[in-house]
Amino acid sequence: MELAEYLMRRIKECGVGSVHGVPGDFNLVSLDYIEKCGLQWVGNCNELNAGHAADGYARVNGISALMTVMGVGELPALSAIAGAYAEYVPIIHIVGKPSRRAQADRLYLHHTLGDGDFDVFAQMSAAVSCTAVSLEDPKTAPAQIDHAIQQCWIQSRPVLILLPTDLVPVSVNDFRLTGALDLSCKNNEVEEVALVDGIVKELHQAANPVLVIGGYGIRQDMTAEILGLAELWKIPTCITPMGKGLVDETLPFFRGLYVGQCSEPSVAQIVQSADLIISIGDIQSDLSTAGFTNRIDPHHTIALERNRASLRGEAFSKLHLKGVLQMLMARWTEERLFCDHPRKDTLAASDMTSIMPGEGSCYSTIRQFLARIMGPFRTQHSIAHKWLWPALGQWLGEGDVVIAETGSPNFGIWRTPFPAESSLITQYLWGSIGYSMGACQGAAQAVRDSGQPQRRTVLFIGDGSFQVSCQELSTLIRLRLAPVIFIICNNGYTTERYVNGWQESYNDIQPWQHRQLLTAFGAPSHAYQAYRVRTREQLQRLLESRKFNNTSVLQLVEVCMSQDDAPEDLIKLAESLKNRNA
Amino acid sequence: MELAEYLMRRIKECGVGSVHGVPGDFNLVSLDYIEKCGLQWVGNCNELNAGHAADGYARVNGISALMTVMGVGELPALSAIAGAYAEYVPIIHIVGKPSRRAQADRLYLHHTLGDGDFDVFAQMSAAVSCTAVSLEDPKTAPAQIDHAIQQCWIQSRPVLILLPTDLVPVSVNDFRLTGALDLSCKNNEVEEVALVDGIVKELHQAANPVLVIGGYGIRQDMTAEILGLAELWKIPTCITPMGKGLVDETLPFFRGLYVGQCSEPSVAQIVQSADLIISIGDIQSDLSTAGFTNRIDPHHTIALERNRASLRGEAFSKLHLKGVLQMLMARWTEERLFCDHPRKDTLAASDMTSIMPGEGSCYSTIRQFLARIMGPFRTQHSIAHKWLWPALGQWLGEGDVVIAETGSPNFGIWRTPFPAESSLITQYLWGSIGYSMGACQGAAQAVRDSGQPQRRTVLFIGDGSFQVSCQELSTLIRLRLAPVIFIICNNGYTTERYVNGWQESYNDIQPWQHRQLLTAFGAPSHAYQAYRVRTREQLQRLLESRKFNNTSVLQLVEVCMSQDDAPEDLIKLAESLKNRNA
Repeated sequence: MELAEYLMRRIKECGVGSVHGVPGDFNLVSLDYIEKCGLQWVGNCNELNAGHAADGYARVNGISALMTVMGVGELPALSAIAGAYAEYVPIIHIVGKPSRRAQADRLYLHHTLGDGDFDVFAQMSAAVSCTAVSLEDPKTAPAQIDHAIQQCWIQSRPVLILLPTDLVPVSVNDFRLTGALDLSCKNNEVEEVALVDGIVKELHQAANPVLVIGGYGIRQDMTAEILGLAELWKIPTCITPMGKGLVDETLPFFRGLYVGQCSEPSVAQIVQSADLIISIGDIQSDLSTAGFTNRIDPHHTIALERNRASLRGEAFSKLHLKGVLQMLMARWTEERLFCDHPRKDTLAASDMTSIMPGEGSCYSTIRQFLARIMGPFRTQHSIAHKWLWPALGQWLGEGDVVIAETGSPNFGIWRTPFPAESSLITQYLWGSIGYSMGACQGAAQAVRDSGQPQRRTVLFIGDGSFQVSCQELSTLIRLRLAPVIFIICNNGYTTERYVNGWQESYNDIQPWQHRQLLTAFGAPSHAYQAYRVRTREQLQRLLESRKFNNTSVLQLVEVCMSQDDAPEDLIKLAESLKNRNA
Repeated sequence: MELAEYLMRRIKECGVGSVHGVPGDFNLVSLDYIEKCGLQWVGNCNELNAGHAADGYARVNGISALMTVMGVGELPALSAIAGAYAEYVPIIHIVGKPSRRAQADRLYLHHTLGDGDFDVFAQMSAAVSCTAVSLEDPKTAPAQIDHAIQQCWIQSRPVLILLPTDLVPVSVNDFRLTGALDLSCKNNEVEEVALVDGIVKELHQAANPVLVIGGYGIRQDMTAEILGLAELWKIPTCITPMGKGLVDETLPFFRGLYVGQCSEPSVAQIVQSADLIISIGDIQSDLSTAGFTNRIDPHHTIALERNRASLRGEAFSKLHLKGVLQMLMARWTEERLFCDHPRKDTLAASDMTSIMPGEGSCYSTIRQFLARIMGPFRTQHSIAHKWLWPALGQWLGEGDVVIAETGSPNFGIWRTPFPAESSLITQYLWGSIGYSMGACQGAAQAVRDSGQPQRRTVLFIGDGSFQVSCQELSTLIRLRLAPVIFIICNNGYTTERYVNGWQESYNDIQPWQHRQLLTAFGAPSHAYQAYRVRTREQLQRLLESRKFNNTSVLQLVEVCMSQDDAPEDLIKLAESLKNRNA
């Protein structure tokens, strides 16, 4: 079997359906193996967008693959890889390199610094990859590929595979393909039992435990375990921003979003008065704690991360979380353990009708709430963030994949109640503007590959961020992907205005006619629907209209908003950023 | 004086008029000092484009400045910085970092990997910068800034200046501003004299010397010396691809482009039969030697590079070229040295009328040649590369700044005779597609800043490359810059088709309506002219039309060409790339 075929078959085997990237002379020949192996090639417009698309694909699909060429294609994608590394997103990044001979001869090739050094870029990439393998010998290459893909899955972070052009068609032994890739991860049993015993004991002793779910390193392969445990434990459950979309917000034990000073008081009270906080997959960064205001005492905390844990300050290193969660589930199920404290704050379903948004999170009552505050359309109201994000909850549906760009969208979305099975894609740690256009393409492709056409992909992006990566709209059109894209048109970098330069022109952008981009990017008129809304009432009518909700084509909605308006939580956060900069 | 003011004043002092970049929370406060210090802020749509724009600006202006933020803005620009490093383009890259306090506390801030490490990205950037300084102490910061800018100029490569947010308004001693930055470079006199003596001696002994001018590390600040020497020496002078636009091709001692097997036979003969080759600023990479076919014997060569030289194999390290060239000029001028061999191949001006393109390079005769081959417009001809590039020479004018994207344009342009004072911007070493849209914006801005409004900026780009970085068209519109942009529309990556995948869809792109992009990007109808040409005759008429040549607005021309056609030199090169990949 040829080396590139081996690689592609392994990629397909671990669940990838489409490969993202940009062609270049050092990867062209390997692209020939993609279709041959039953994969689809998604050619993006540039490598940064391709990297973001691979990130979005992995967040929906579980893992993804990206192909670039050394240096000139690899470096533009580097920020996307760094973001995936920071946020525990598994991307198999294959970098096409010149032939082994050219490297050995230290030729002054194009796409190099002209100094015979072929390793300088891989060193950069390796710094934001959990594993890097350089394929050089056909005898060892299959094992190297297997190792890289295993690590990508197990560590849930990008890996780098360097593939010289001349190795692409070289024969390799394919005996390893007779067995499936082993993606399991065995823990040290003594340590695992010690941790699980500790957790069980703590849970039984606690009077007011709370489960706090983040989203780092657990999204791809542990959702079932986490939701299962929450179901078994039946203790109050909160999410941090990265956990949004992981937990069904309509479940009775769901309490809301915990994000320090931006939390609802009732949620803050639950977390801050808890005598035991079990946090899973949380990274307490400035943005996800509203400027380090989360006040979680490590001595009251069991912190479970992907590859380590700490129990009231005691560290358990190198324990893979999935095994721990599965053992916990088994203990609860087999031994019929129960939590012996029916919480005073546990609400019966019948209690929920009185809850308004902000005091909990009940999807059905929010509909009623909004219907009341919307009232009959007597006057026309401009679209304010305070209204927008709760209102969008009405429209979101089960299974929706929501992508929220860094800025107004990913802070506004805190106030959007999510229906069951919906999920959120955003970057609370890396926070790269422009990320979401690429991620949207990748996510939409992953939804398509999953064979669940009823799931919608919905993007919220600001007009400044959109300009960073607008050309992926073209890729969406080319692939006939049909997300719903809301562009918040507010003349530029409003988030930054709140940090510095309220009126400064450096926070302005060139005004675009976004709807015209669709035809400029080659969309025939039957292939899209485009709208511009300026008032609440227009948006509300749109969200309720049959035409908008029953279509299989791409939709783009310009949502015109005031340059000065921002979600309240963002304003608080910007203040904290500003103070920390000083 | 506040630190950021000191920095901006130094940047302005060394000749920068406009600063490129993208705002972000870690650089916002420093942006307030740009206008205050008489500089202009150019906000690009994204950081990769901003980096390319800074590169283009520096190639016209001599040096440029770029502002990004740590990680999330710095990394997307990294490929542009690497390209500038490879190609000796001086960019002062200022990266806004979090406050010193936040770094010392290793806070888990956004735009980090969530591990308290604030140095990981700077290590990547430093690998493609000739100097990196981290500002931490107001006492030493001014000296660090001076050092970085000096090195940027002297080494003609990017430097990295890391600026924490809290240092921006801190007071620094400004006594250094009383003196101008010392951008001179003293050589070791003994070594310098030895080299110059050697060169003089070799030149006198040589029977058939030739001067071969490349473009690496000499463009910004040595053009006068190089052209002066060529004028004094009066020996046959050739250029390599990177030297195109450096030498007035209409001068009598100019012989043409030397690029190995792609050279005209007469040019190859001159170089390959020379008993002495004086090469200046040449990097013999695969693309600039047509696949290492240049056959330049180091034992017949004096190779003069920016920071080192070799004379028939003897190395002179750490000699700065400018001093060497100036001493050489002085020797010729003061001692009235002369070349005592009026070359048999030196042509009198009167001999030139017989020269056809391809047999030399005479601008006036090419006009005649083309007028003849164009003939009366009896039939309509499709636009072929073989015709296009020589024909464009007719239209280019003195002083034009020509930007040629990697691919068809920067190989096709080898066959375009350049008028005097015109210059070429392209990347023969780094070869990043998409580079030229950013570079075009930067170059056009630099031309504007130079106060020479009669100079045109002319871009040639393929449709695949254009999709990489199309949004800089919006920046051009916003700034009312008015380059002439030719987009070669041939359905994607034709260069790559010649390497692999002739009919493969991975080399196709989504077809765009480029002219509609102008309005989509917010250009009012009076602010541009847009055209599509499909035949030679249409293009010829356009190039001759008054409307096209007498306008002060941006112009965009879609040049429709066959997907299968490419410049002959590119086809040869692609063959060599293909073989080297195997």
